[in-house]
Amino acid sequence: MENENFVFPPSSMIFNGNNGFSARPVTDTKEDILKEHNDLVHPNIPGWFSEYCPVWPGQTHFLKVEKILFQGKSKFQSMMVFQSSAYGKVFVLDGALQLTEKDECSYQEMMTHLPLCSIPNPKKVLLIGGGDGGILREISRHSSVEQIDICEIDTMLIDVYKEFFPDIAVGYKDSRVTVHIVDGTVFLSSVPRGTYDAIIVDCFDPIRPDHEVFESPFFELVSRALRPGGVICIQAESIWFRSLHIEELFIKCRQTFKGSVDYAWTIVPAYPSGVIGFLLCSTEGPYIDFRNPINPIGPEGRYGVAKEPLKFYNSEVHSAAFCLPSFVKVIDTRTESS
Amino acid sequence: MENENFVFPPSSMIFNGNNGFSARPVTDTKEDILKEHNDLVHPNIPGWFSEYCPVWPGQTHFLKVEKILFQGKSKFQSMMVFQSSAYGKVFVLDGALQLTEKDECSYQEMMTHLPLCSIPNPKKVLLIGGGDGGILREISRHSSVEQIDICEIDTMLIDVYKEFFPDIAVGYKDSRVTVHIVDGTVFLSSVPRGTYDAIIVDCFDPIRPDHEVFESPFFELVSRALRPGGVICIQAESIWFRSLHIEELFIKCRQTFKGSVDYAWTIVPAYPSGVIGFLLCSTEGPYIDFRNPINPIGPEGRYGVAKEPLKFYNSEVHSAAFCLPSFVKVIDTRTESS
Repeated sequence: MENENFVFPPSSMIFNGNNGFSARPVTDTKEDILKEHNDLVHPNIPGWFSEYCPVWPGQTHFLKVEKILFQGKSKFQSMMVFQSSAYGKVFVLDGALQLTEKDECSYQEMMTHLPLCSIPNPKKVLLIGGGDGGILREISRHSSVEQIDICEIDTMLIDVYKEFFPDIAVGYKDSRVTVHIVDGTVFLSSVPRGTYDAIIVDCFDPIRPDHEVFESPFFELVSRALRPGGVICIQAESIWFRSLHIEELFIKCRQTFKGSVDYAWTIVPAYPSGVIGFLLCSTEGPYIDFRNPINPIGPEGRYGVAKEPLKFYNSEVHSAAFCLPSFVKVIDTRTESS
Repeated sequence: MENENFVFPPSSMIFNGNNGFSARPVTDTKEDILKEHNDLVHPNIPGWFSEYCPVWPGQTHFLKVEKILFQGKSKFQSMMVFQSSAYGKVFVLDGALQLTEKDECSYQEMMTHLPLCSIPNPKKVLLIGGGDGGILREISRHSSVEQIDICEIDTMLIDVYKEFFPDIAVGYKDSRVTVHIVDGTVFLSSVPRGTYDAIIVDCFDPIRPDHEVFESPFFELVSRALRPGGVICIQAESIWFRSLHIEELFIKCRQTFKGSVDYAWTIVPAYPSGVIGFLLCSTEGPYIDFRNPINPIGPEGRYGVAKEPLKFYNSEVHSAAFCLPSFVKVIDTRTESS
């Protein structure tokens, strides 16, 4: 059924890339653009976007496309920005929905403040991935922070966000931020041991016990780059997907990081199943109780470069995020392994 | 795009209704059934079901249909049961997804145990709507309960659930249950004042401050049927939808019920936006702190007629359900109005 109301965007939206972009202006014919758009969609409704969710086949969430604002390819990945009628602007990377203006607050705020509010006085923070800038924006709210490093391999991604999502990419305006255009593993190898209080990893697909990262040196390098009692936060699966074996995940992470391990989750309606989890670990050192935000960030606090107060996070939501349904109830491995 | 893998159900599935059903056997042609099915779908993919979400246009969630198991119409409403590939069996009422086998645990357990675990020793419980039997199943876990009344107007709905969802309709097997086939308002009018410890209302579309129920005598009748310090739980909107003005809802409910008012939510991935809320109120009398489950139900407890332990609810999740994102943070009206 052709959606009668869908007006395809005129070919006038030309994105002027820089920094080595291989972006192409959106000047193709309607048919060319539709074909490329449709290749991302499974199944297909003209004028609507959906992402295929391979971990939970047989369901898909469609968003009505008001206008495609940008399409391009860097040497690493393909990107699309469109205006949706329900979620504001949407960013799509290699066919997968990355964020929407409507609900990015939940993901960015929780991924940042869950780790940073769990430790006293964070000063040095590393973000790996997260090129959109939203986590930088959130780190910026913490006045104790003196140094914010970000490793993002794809400059085109940064520039597309700066162009189309200025309220998210605003994080780059913080003068404490240094951008490192380099692979995260390469960067970590060069970092002196014990440099960071917190490392936030926003570059993997959701993590589970059989994730390839456990076989690679990546986590060892992260652990080495953290000070004793330093913390890592990484995106970690929806609790509704059967592939999440949280006890196994705990055991693997305790072996790697040797401190606390905990699992939290938040709601992001544009993501498959509407929720996404976070894995929080600390290195050997002072005990970190992730459920207790000892370094709270209140509504009265300074915003840093963010233009608005927190939309989603607060200390109550922080603690509540660790309460899991009975079907994923965590067996506390601290007792078992100690 | 015709979905190549979709095999339309053979016409062999004949449902034998009783109790005044106007059910019709599913013996129509493929074309007839598809047309009726498609009338429920907006937009349309053959072989997939989606519900149109009028409170949040521009998005829709599709479920792949493996087989339509039942279609019929009572004198009140139309019903469909289908086997989905992602969520197990799905029940659809007048085109709206009611529940799925995959995630019904969250809705039914939270809607039942949030009120019943908040009061000591509940003995008499009334369920209005909830004809599927899942809330009855959950009430059945409470050994203090002596009397369970259910008002369900549509016997066909009950019978369809008994036929296709025996693990949900199992709630009817509890000997404490009395089924009243009557409109909820009519039933409430006949109930002596102060009869019930708890009333669970599972028959409205999500409630918001401008909901017509506030203009009707329904809430007054519920309040009258509750003992002092008795509690009501009612389905109440997704926090992601702008129509939810939670402060207004609080004020209206405090005026009506005169005791505590609180708002909780849970995750149900098959529902629009993946979350649904609950409004909890108590009548004037002993103070009820809904956030504190003083009448806990543990994994070691008896199951009643349920065949399995709790899948979703636990005391931690109970308290966490009241922690709201900053964008819907509740102003405590207790202070303001006292």
